[in-house]
Amino acid sequence: MVLRGLGRHLIVEVWGVDAELLDDEAGLRDMLVEAARRAGGRVMGVLFHKFEPQGVTGVVAIAESHISIHTWPEYGYAAIDIFTCGSHVDPWRAFEYSVGKLKPKSINVFEVRRGVMPGGGEF
Amino acid sequence: MVLRGLGRHLIVEVWGVDAELLDDEAGLRDMLVEAARRAGGRVMGVLFHKFEPQGVTGVVAIAESHISIHTWPEYGYAAIDIFTCGSHVDPWRAFEYSVGKLKPKSINVFEVRRGVMPGGGEF
Repeated sequence: MVLRGLGRHLIVEVWGVDAELLDDEAGLRDMLVEAARRAGGRVMGVLFHKFEPQGVTGVVAIAESHISIHTWPEYGYAAIDIFTCGSHVDPWRAFEYSVGKLKPKSINVFEVRRGVMPGGGEF
Repeated sequence: MVLRGLGRHLIVEVWGVDAELLDDEAGLRDMLVEAARRAGGRVMGVLFHKFEPQGVTGVVAIAESHISIHTWPEYGYAAIDIFTCGSHVDPWRAFEYSVGKLKPKSINVFEVRRGVMPGGGEF
């Protein structure tokens, strides 16, 4: 019996990131789009918003699910989610690229398998 | 010491949902926007896509983070994420509304606290 699943979802917590990086809407947009590309995803749409006085929220919808980021520059913190489905994409490539860009002092990442069913699965 | 966090993230797995509901892009868009409203969120943007032959992916960016859904009508399955920050929003209201609409045969939900730090937190 194969127990894989339909999706892989990386829940990423990064701390100790430079505040300017976390407040740079255009830079974070470019980062997430490139992260999606490196994972092997196809970008369907992008939504970003810059808050005042600080903070950015962004979502990249991909054909294979989504990648999101929400930042708190005042705490040097960002919450990143990388959710992909299908065997042709690798969410860890998006993770590695994003972490390489943000250079956090600490990283926590959890992989959650989504849509796991008996005998089924797509990766 | 208070240990709360910056965000609450509900990871929702629903199975045994009617395939037509899971393939109804407009219906799912309305559901997620209304779910965001019920949670107390402010919608910043919406991205939805319908796949052929089946399946819908959708993300609602809210000022307080995001809500997303990815559906596999062929398995009666959907992966829903409800991520909110701030004490004025309640992700469980979005959860209850969505589950009430989808009427799954089984539900699994996990609450993940995001951005937890010593002595800090916003809810």
